Amino acid sequence: VKISLLNDFNFPSWVKHTKPSAIDDLIGYASQPDFISFALGLPDQSFLPKAVLTEVTNDIIENEIDAFQYSPPLEELKTEIVKLMHLRGVSCDEKQIFLTSGGQQGLNLLVTLLLERGQPVILEELVYPGILQSLKPFSPEILTVPTDLKTGMDVEAVERILKSGVKPAFIYIVADGSNPLGVNLALDKRKRLAELANTYGVPIIEDDPYGFLNYSNQLPCIKSFGGENIFYVGSFSKIFSPALRTGWVVVPECFLPLLVSLKESFDVNIATFGQRITMGLLRKNIFESHMQILCSAYRERRDKMILSLNQYFPTEISFETPDSGFFIWVNFIENINTTLMLEKSLNAKVSYIPSQSFSAIAGAKHTSGMRLNFSYSSSQQIEEGIKRLAETY
Amino acid sequence: VKISLLNDFNFPSWVKHTKPSAIDDLIGYASQPDFISFALGLPDQSFLPKAVLTEVTNDIIENEIDAFQYSPPLEELKTEIVKLMHLRGVSCDEKQIFLTSGGQQGLNLLVTLLLERGQPVILEELVYPGILQSLKPFSPEILTVPTDLKTGMDVEAVERILKSGVKPAFIYIVADGSNPLGVNLALDKRKRLAELANTYGVPIIEDDPYGFLNYSNQLPCIKSFGGENIFYVGSFSKIFSPALRTGWVVVPECFLPLLVSLKESFDVNIATFGQRITMGLLRKNIFESHMQILCSAYRERRDKMILSLNQYFPTEISFETPDSGFFIWVNFIENINTTLMLEKSLNAKVSYIPSQSFSAIAGAKHTSGMRLNFSYSSSQQIEEGIKRLAETY
Repeated sequence: VKISLLNDFNFPSWVKHTKPSAIDDLIGYASQPDFISFALGLPDQSFLPKAVLTEVTNDIIENEIDAFQYSPPLEELKTEIVKLMHLRGVSCDEKQIFLTSGGQQGLNLLVTLLLERGQPVILEELVYPGILQSLKPFSPEILTVPTDLKTGMDVEAVERILKSGVKPAFIYIVADGSNPLGVNLALDKRKRLAELANTYGVPIIEDDPYGFLNYSNQLPCIKSFGGENIFYVGSFSKIFSPALRTGWVVVPECFLPLLVSLKESFDVNIATFGQRITMGLLRKNIFESHMQILCSAYRERRDKMILSLNQYFPTEISFETPDSGFFIWVNFIENINTTLMLEKSLNAKVSYIPSQSFSAIAGAKHTSGMRLNFSYSSSQQIEEGIKRLAETY
Repeated sequence: VKISLLNDFNFPSWVKHTKPSAIDDLIGYASQPDFISFALGLPDQSFLPKAVLTEVTNDIIENEIDAFQYSPPLEELKTEIVKLMHLRGVSCDEKQIFLTSGGQQGLNLLVTLLLERGQPVILEELVYPGILQSLKPFSPEILTVPTDLKTGMDVEAVERILKSGVKPAFIYIVADGSNPLGVNLALDKRKRLAELANTYGVPIIEDDPYGFLNYSNQLPCIKSFGGENIFYVGSFSKIFSPALRTGWVVVPECFLPLLVSLKESFDVNIATFGQRITMGLLRKNIFESHMQILCSAYRERRDKMILSLNQYFPTEISFETPDSGFFIWVNFIENINTTLMLEKSLNAKVSYIPSQSFSAIAGAKHTSGMRLNFSYSSSQQIEEGIKRLAETY
């Protein structure tokens, strides 16, 4: 009955190939008792200062006269973001900042503005599924480049594509704590990529949700080495809360009217309650101390996961130690199919995302890797979860 | 400098014609001291029960463990919406409801799913600009039908188009308190339109932001007379708060996976803080009493505006008394150009939206009408504003 009904509608062609994401399938599991989720990219919200949140929201309800009204996006929040961008090595002003409903909307707005149907784009072979979802309606030609697990995107491969005369709509990259591979792009590669964007007139979309979550020395973002051609996407989802749906993009000033108009068509471009709470938190000057708390807690969990992987998988796997972000990427040395292994692991009450789910090109084989999240579970859960994984594989 | 920069980017063709909306231009004016805005469709947020809001938000922060986390859209809110749909004459269940970031996102999601590039759509000649913004990237063929100021959309004109063999992607309508014309679609026309959708297999998008704001007897929505082919768009923006960005669509159950996937690509499909506050308010059982407060206050303001129009423009204009919504549509009997008149009126510190801004087809001439909002200003401001208008025209 369901299928015949869907067939009654005359959908645009790209809709016919739509299916729910693997990530969506796994959200439900996380709430089972005793389940240990290494699957999703969840922050641990127990670190949020509840007393400050209560104070901030009460203050908004009581004193901000337009808190519940249609009102323009918060300029004051842009001023706070200018300061944060400075911490990422970028000098910009409020006129280059556009507030979004989280990082995903930032991506989606930029994709919609930069990509003509069927145009090529450059992605890494293993990539954040959210960018693939945003690309889908535009049926782009997806060109992929490999990733070195220690130094990130193969920038020479990017150069070869550009040299060949191909003109992609953009290059997409998560340079810090990349998703799914957990790697930081090396400093010299950041500079080189920014140069290439400039030389060949090809935009870069730099997606930076983890740029403030560093476990050794922080690198300046790619945007800090380049100009107007580099579009930066920021987000408060991993550092404050995804449920506040607040992010931003840094773009050339001339893009602002285009973004205003496009966001109006998406979901109206106004100050949201989430923007106000985010601004309230930033004004309490908790940003730096909160980042210290998060980085120290997540570093400890990362270390615990590495210890446990070494303890329970002494010879079967290989991995690197991520300097940023939420993920450890594990490769099985033998030819294990991690997609097939997932069912057994869910039965053992532990989850991860198999490598195949991150494949930029649907047909390409990436069977023996898995993405493990270390930010969400306690150290104790991390050890127990890795033990369960080792027993089930 | 700005323009040359924009020209450096190789935008998709529809982007080149993008300009900010007239509405966006007028948002700034409303905050000037002593300015009276009849321009925007703003609810009066002073009617919101602040004490309840504070209680609800504190309860969320204190007790809802996933309040700030990635978590699935709130099923319990869907249950509350099922009850609201019942008040609109619609029997549905949670599986047909999809939560959106306000009504505009509901529209935009449905447009994206139902419209193939270049396909025809049916709109009224004067139409909500937000639907035009959503249509733009798809470059549709816009077919228009006239509107009777007492009974709404010319449904016979719709039938003539469908009979001619044209297969539009959908018919778009605001049946209650239409925007901009303020008219309710007559009961027999609702039934007939639902029949046409069924007979010709053409979807209707019924946009219903004002369906709960009635000043005489409430009519059941079009969806209540039809089946799966009628897509209902609901919103809490006018009845609770636009800043919470919470709306919904009622669709065939088989659409849910498509909407999930599409919203994931737009801005991630999770429970937001706004959804939680909305649910908290509904659970306090304030909906009916709050609607009574709003309807009674807005009815009084509507009546005051009509009185003032009759007093200050005794012979120059014609208008109807709206039974729902936020707007009175005024036509000048003489051939006044309301677009040209706007500047003088802004100087006199009163605003409205000129008819031309609502034209579904850019070139079509609609020069002598204006949309006046009566929900936002006090009775005293309404009289003063209408007086100012009468003095400046």
